[in-house]
Amino acid sequence: MRLRIDLSYDGSDFHGWATQPGLRTVQGTLEGALTTVLRVPAVTLVCAGRTDTGVHARGQVVHLDLPEESTYDEKLLRRLNGILPADVRVTALAPAADGFDARFSAEWRRYAYRVADDPTLADPLTRGHVLWWPRPLDVEAMTAASVPLTGLHDFAAFCKQREGATTVRTLLDLAWQRDADGLVAATVRADAFCHHMVRSLVGCLLPVGEGRRPVTWPVEILAAAVRDPAVAVVAAHGLTLEEVGYPDDADLAAQAHRARATREVP
Amino acid sequence: MRLRIDLSYDGSDFHGWATQPGLRTVQGTLEGALTTVLRVPAVTLVCAGRTDTGVHARGQVVHLDLPEESTYDEKLLRRLNGILPADVRVTALAPAADGFDARFSAEWRRYAYRVADDPTLADPLTRGHVLWWPRPLDVEAMTAASVPLTGLHDFAAFCKQREGATTVRTLLDLAWQRDADGLVAATVRADAFCHHMVRSLVGCLLPVGEGRRPVTWPVEILAAAVRDPAVAVVAAHGLTLEEVGYPDDADLAAQAHRARATREVP
Repeated sequence: MRLRIDLSYDGSDFHGWATQPGLRTVQGTLEGALTTVLRVPAVTLVCAGRTDTGVHARGQVVHLDLPEESTYDEKLLRRLNGILPADVRVTALAPAADGFDARFSAEWRRYAYRVADDPTLADPLTRGHVLWWPRPLDVEAMTAASVPLTGLHDFAAFCKQREGATTVRTLLDLAWQRDADGLVAATVRADAFCHHMVRSLVGCLLPVGEGRRPVTWPVEILAAAVRDPAVAVVAAHGLTLEEVGYPDDADLAAQAHRARATREVP
Repeated sequence: MRLRIDLSYDGSDFHGWATQPGLRTVQGTLEGALTTVLRVPAVTLVCAGRTDTGVHARGQVVHLDLPEESTYDEKLLRRLNGILPADVRVTALAPAADGFDARFSAEWRRYAYRVADDPTLADPLTRGHVLWWPRPLDVEAMTAASVPLTGLHDFAAFCKQREGATTVRTLLDLAWQRDADGLVAATVRADAFCHHMVRSLVGCLLPVGEGRRPVTWPVEILAAAVRDPAVAVVAAHGLTLEEVGYPDDADLAAQAHRARATREVP
């Protein structure tokens, strides 16, 4: 039996999602808690979005194939939250539909990046997940610069290359708005992201918002298709994985098949 | 010259507002930063709401009489934020109107108390300023129980007594609502609060929200006018001082005179 687990975490004190020997990671923490509540020697989780050190999640999704000697039980969620530290919370836990794969069945991932661009907006209570930027940002300029980045492109200019992995992605949304609290918030949604992609995109757009770079700069960087040292990878703590989108249950397996095929360089 | 300073802070790592020898307090931290930027040996701040250990503020107001050897300068705000730790931010700093007294000119203080009453609402990113409550709360019952508490009363039942201080207060608002994120939030506004008053009021209303106490219980506690051990002082970290209200400039001095007179037991 496969379980789907939805979770939120404050990435501040984690060395990212993926298990690393001797370091506190979300995967290591959650797998440890699961072995305790399931009374099994080990479990392995697969997640939808492998967040980096310091990146947060409100809508991370993982799956787990239950070891044979364990059983699903409705009390698992409460037991799990009872032993997990307060910076990770499981918000849902249930048997997954046939064909569900947290990583490969996902149609898209949606991230938010939040920026306070005025000293009066710098709220100590949210400083762990909002970037404090010392100069005002022009949301309209950032929006204009973002529009030509959406769609199917090779995002090599915004990705830390990994051997054998394509950097072609479909950027479904890259939208900026000033939210109810006055913060500048980016909504970034794509079929999938390569490593550092959201933080590089934001790092390329903030100088446009400041007026230090022209509105055309980001699309020129994209077209060059090589990393440009002038593009900063912006701080991790402003970034939150907000939601992962899956197709209807009937399409889960087909979507997983498609995603596996397109994510590998032939 | 008197300055008015507006500030926000995350109370988690402070032993409250008021200076205490050897402990990290907001007053001590801000006074220390002010002596540095003003280049004076010492300053003394007066605040609108003396928050307890762990209580936050988004709208704290303080005043400072500038020592003679120092001068006001528009760059003070930026310099101050440059040396303050990230858990305190000054959001405004300017010469105060004639008659302004941060404490005694205030007409009211408004606090918020935030509760997540469902595991799916427990957001690790806001856990520092939201109470996680394990059982669902009935906002309508809490509202019904709160209405008769508003107005002018002796709140001795909800106050930690201090010698020579009255516990008579005017509770202007005690309203409960479920906010956009699904959290249960109390808005509590009064001319002034005695020690532990908001946290005792909330501690008395949560059992009503759970259905463990009748809607009439809080007003019975109020009428008894003595502290009841059955009323818990709820955790500090859910409480935030949101705003302090002042009259028009012309009434600042008169308001200060009135407040001084009513806050002392004759």
